[in-house]
Amino acid sequence: MQTYQHLENRSRECALINTACSVLHWDHQTYLPPKAATYRGEQTAYFSSLAHRLFTADEVGRWLAACENQAGALTAIQQANVREWRRRYDRATKIPASLVEEFERSATAAHGAWSEARAAADFNRFRPHLEKILELRLRMVELWGVGNNPYDTLLDEYEPGANSEELQALFSSLAPRLAGLLAKGVAFYESQPDDFPAGPYPVEQQKIFNQKVATKFGFDFDAGRIDATAHPFCTGLGPDDCRLTTRYTEDDFTNSLYSVLHETGHGLYDQGTLKEHYGTPAGEAVSLGIHESQSRFWENHIARHATFWEYWLPVAAELFPQLRKITPLTMSRHVNRVRRGFIRVDADELSYDLHIILRFNIENRLINRTLTVKELPDFWNAEFEKLFAVRVPNDALGCLQDVHWSGGMIGYFPTYTLGNLNAAQLAHKMRQAIPGMTSQLASGEYAEILSWLRTNIHCHGSIHQPSTLMTNATGEKTNPVYHLTHLREKIK
Amino acid sequence: MQTYQHLENRSRECALINTACSVLHWDHQTYLPPKAATYRGEQTAYFSSLAHRLFTADEVGRWLAACENQAGALTAIQQANVREWRRRYDRATKIPASLVEEFERSATAAHGAWSEARAAADFNRFRPHLEKILELRLRMVELWGVGNNPYDTLLDEYEPGANSEELQALFSSLAPRLAGLLAKGVAFYESQPDDFPAGPYPVEQQKIFNQKVATKFGFDFDAGRIDATAHPFCTGLGPDDCRLTTRYTEDDFTNSLYSVLHETGHGLYDQGTLKEHYGTPAGEAVSLGIHESQSRFWENHIARHATFWEYWLPVAAELFPQLRKITPLTMSRHVNRVRRGFIRVDADELSYDLHIILRFNIENRLINRTLTVKELPDFWNAEFEKLFAVRVPNDALGCLQDVHWSGGMIGYFPTYTLGNLNAAQLAHKMRQAIPGMTSQLASGEYAEILSWLRTNIHCHGSIHQPSTLMTNATGEKTNPVYHLTHLREKIK
Repeated sequence: MQTYQHLENRSRECALINTACSVLHWDHQTYLPPKAATYRGEQTAYFSSLAHRLFTADEVGRWLAACENQAGALTAIQQANVREWRRRYDRATKIPASLVEEFERSATAAHGAWSEARAAADFNRFRPHLEKILELRLRMVELWGVGNNPYDTLLDEYEPGANSEELQALFSSLAPRLAGLLAKGVAFYESQPDDFPAGPYPVEQQKIFNQKVATKFGFDFDAGRIDATAHPFCTGLGPDDCRLTTRYTEDDFTNSLYSVLHETGHGLYDQGTLKEHYGTPAGEAVSLGIHESQSRFWENHIARHATFWEYWLPVAAELFPQLRKITPLTMSRHVNRVRRGFIRVDADELSYDLHIILRFNIENRLINRTLTVKELPDFWNAEFEKLFAVRVPNDALGCLQDVHWSGGMIGYFPTYTLGNLNAAQLAHKMRQAIPGMTSQLASGEYAEILSWLRTNIHCHGSIHQPSTLMTNATGEKTNPVYHLTHLREKIK
Repeated sequence: MQTYQHLENRSRECALINTACSVLHWDHQTYLPPKAATYRGEQTAYFSSLAHRLFTADEVGRWLAACENQAGALTAIQQANVREWRRRYDRATKIPASLVEEFERSATAAHGAWSEARAAADFNRFRPHLEKILELRLRMVELWGVGNNPYDTLLDEYEPGANSEELQALFSSLAPRLAGLLAKGVAFYESQPDDFPAGPYPVEQQKIFNQKVATKFGFDFDAGRIDATAHPFCTGLGPDDCRLTTRYTEDDFTNSLYSVLHETGHGLYDQGTLKEHYGTPAGEAVSLGIHESQSRFWENHIARHATFWEYWLPVAAELFPQLRKITPLTMSRHVNRVRRGFIRVDADELSYDLHIILRFNIENRLINRTLTVKELPDFWNAEFEKLFAVRVPNDALGCLQDVHWSGGMIGYFPTYTLGNLNAAQLAHKMRQAIPGMTSQLASGEYAEILSWLRTNIHCHGSIHQPSTLMTNATGEKTNPVYHLTHLREKIK
């Protein structure tokens, strides 16, 4: 069908521009000389706008309508692509350019104000900006269209098909259990010695070790690489070009290692999508909640598994002689240690989701106007104390800690917890499907594990919605029981 | 004038696309994972073609004609921009797309054949490809228009305003003198000891030293950087983003050093063009012969100057302990040593231009059909023996050594020698203008030297033609006498 082919060509053309834009972003984060940032901003803005113009052109709307009218003539994969193109086209075209520009200007100002506010632990500097961002987001929600809850419309950007009612139920049942587990976990680890040897762990040796583990997991370094940045990330710059980043501290090599293994999880998903679908939704990750399930799976279910260091400690000890005197148990305890903390990005597995639930409850209320921006800090602190049983000392360690809201990313946080829940559910199913999995882990073999993910998750791209993908892979939609079981086992 | 503004906007838009394309190229040479090369090729082809389409659009032709009709309403700088845009527009639009495509296909095939031919030292494998390239270039010359000599039309691509008659006169007078100097130089250096200490010179220490020297020369590392590539180059990715590359061998740190200092010369030119003219010819380097004068100036007239190592040897010796026992004279002799060799890119200052003159004579004959491609190898070998007094053992060390012809770059080689001549002429003039120059060199001070180049060369961009620029800076057009004097002084 020729009209479908037009759409596919346009999609691939936009992918080519967007990946070039991603190269410009990657270079910005890794190697850009400081004075070059302004012009780089002009370059990326030009190409983002070019891709946007091409994808929101009138002819795209006509092609979409024609394909939808003749859906029977399309294959299942083509239908899935049309469904996803329609979602993106509507999201992009329902907002007038003037509102997009106002939003981008406001977000830039809000980001600057947030940086200053956080540094000064002064929420009032950020407050008017967050109010503006919220107002603009609500105007967008109206234009996009509201279902049961305006929050769902935002959520849909990051997790197609998710809804706040289900999340609310999920998170409400999860919160008290997690709070209880956290208290037990803290007590348990306080009783365990931490005899992890002091640094220095030279950066060059860390690079070698990180690459060894990522290679064993299955990351293809002929189609990817690792560089250093202030904040770790994973980005795809083409069908055979996946770049991971990390940061190094010589005190503790496990910081860069676990961030690399997290990003490797994202990278394996990226490398596992099908080349023949590249540049179309069928060749792209379906949602953040599924993406995060992949990073969390490799980071937590593989690399924090009790057997992980049985295989890897001797390898690490060749590079870091101070490790020769310790046991795998020391390593395992070190990387699984539970502590109460205020900062989400530093949180361990037991407390992480409590940080997310707190943010979900706030976002959902802000969007539904049952909480004002002015009331936010007090609400945050009160809720935090309920969940963590400690008082937040100031807003820099509280509601000012995350960058997301300053950029208008409301509805993003829940995907982190969905990722954790999905990871545990996939790991559970995998242990049933691969009887030798535990012994494979103990001997550093990951081929069958990766192959299971390739077949059940990666190769499907965005053909199915996240809930269908999870059901096809595990027999049920996202269910928190597997994650809770996984956490309980960590503190036995 | 509004029409002029349209042209300027279009020029800046194309510069933005072309610099993004240069980022993609730079990344390709530095960090691209091997499997990603194919898609990267698609990305760069897309953006090259986009910039080409934008700059060769019909409206650009109309804007140019309107500006030319009202040239009196334009400033001198605007007139210079229009002159240069016209030159580029005509070169780009006079060739039909089908011929451009045929040329690009043929050049790709020729490059592959050349690689194989060189590896096998078998000219016959390359011969039909070179014949095809030559035929296509001649068809282009006809479309562009021929003056006195069709070779001039090709030369104009790299060195606007240059012509083969003048080059012929210049090179004919130069060749016998250079051949005589080379014989003396070889004899002189055979009588001098080479007590340069053996390696290893660790790469990390080389990086530190290279950056120290380039910084002292005036290269702004907040607006540029150095990375490693197979072949050194300098590329501008924006008004404040100049990237140099080099390659390292641990045997001899001066290899990477002198390649960095050569590229630093290019980079200082790039950093010295005026930001307010960025994206227009007035803010761009004017020609390859002027660009090369800048790289050769810093590489040969500064960093191979007799006093250079007086300042830098103690600094180097802190990084490379084996240098503590030698004198500046040992370093100076080592980096100025003269040897007879077959390969242009390995040639020292005394023999370099003989390699170029040989190629100029061949290109000029090929384009004027007074030499056939079939006769090329014998002609090369006979001429080489006349100039160098040694026999070429095979074509890999002879007419197959350079990549240029396989890509259709005919008329490029003379700019290397123009660069050498211009560099010596600028250095001569500078010594008159800066009385303390020699003592500044001995104490590693380069600010006044750079400032002279900024004022006399860099800030003019492409406002003047190369010959006017040289006359304004030195009082005369390119004159070989200064280069010959400079070379004579090296073997005293």
